[in-house]
Amino acid sequence: MDTYAIFKDYRLLFDVFGRAFAEHYYRTFESNPQALVGLYLDYSMLTFEGEKIQGAAAIVSKLTSHPFQQCAHAISTVDCQPSGFSGGVLVVVNGFLLLGGEQHPRMFSQTFQLVPTPQGSFCVLNDMFRLNGWITAGPPV
Amino acid sequence: MDTYAIFKDYRLLFDVFGRAFAEHYYRTFESNPQALVGLYLDYSMLTFEGEKIQGAAAIVSKLTSHPFQQCAHAISTVDCQPSGFSGGVLVVVNGFLLLGGEQHPRMFSQTFQLVPTPQGSFCVLNDMFRLNGWITAGPPV
Repeated sequence: MDTYAIFKDYRLLFDVFGRAFAEHYYRTFESNPQALVGLYLDYSMLTFEGEKIQGAAAIVSKLTSHPFQQCAHAISTVDCQPSGFSGGVLVVVNGFLLLGGEQHPRMFSQTFQLVPTPQGSFCVLNDMFRLNGWITAGPPV
Repeated sequence: MDTYAIFKDYRLLFDVFGRAFAEHYYRTFESNPQALVGLYLDYSMLTFEGEKIQGAAAIVSKLTSHPFQQCAHAISTVDCQPSGFSGGVLVVVNGFLLLGGEQHPRMFSQTFQLVPTPQGSFCVLNDMFRLNGWITAGPPV
């Protein structure tokens, strides 16, 4: 099966792709958040802390709403796999972010499915975001 | 586009489906872990704490290896979206687990892509698992 062979033979390429996407995404988020709209499609889906939103403009409006419009992201891990038989790519980012006005970074997980566009680029079809509590150096004492 | 309409019209159905899958998955994990093999395909992919594994048998062997073979899972949130144009479903679970021999639960994130089988069921094509630190009641003091 193609997907199997792709993952087996190109796993390093997927790692590099996933990392490059994630760095581009959060750099855009912080430097020019309105430009994120170019990464989504009219039928893209976002589940943001359980809330479901559709369409590029509504998604970017939600992603950059208070208190997220001022947050700084740091990437901890990026995992990446081919998502099936249509050239899609799954990218799972775990990291932390510092919200505007807060002192302690919070962990987040964000899952993207990227799909190829006719123009030879990729757009975000699926986006699922969750905050996961605060960073600690170790287990509670 | 079909995917858009599906998500719009059947979002509650996706929530119920995702929750039911997650509960079935972790109940199977804890009660009869070897039965997990029936949920994966020969070409399924797992990225487990960054390690890449393929195939149902190898995946289940990894998932249930020490210290995970004795862990207890609790689900915090389940997010679910249609994954494209082939009947696939994305399920993102955030929760916590207690590893055998440990006293403090750790948070985890697990992203699944489920794909329909010719038999009318679903199997896991993609699985991406990460531990995300320890549970705390609030920010560090």
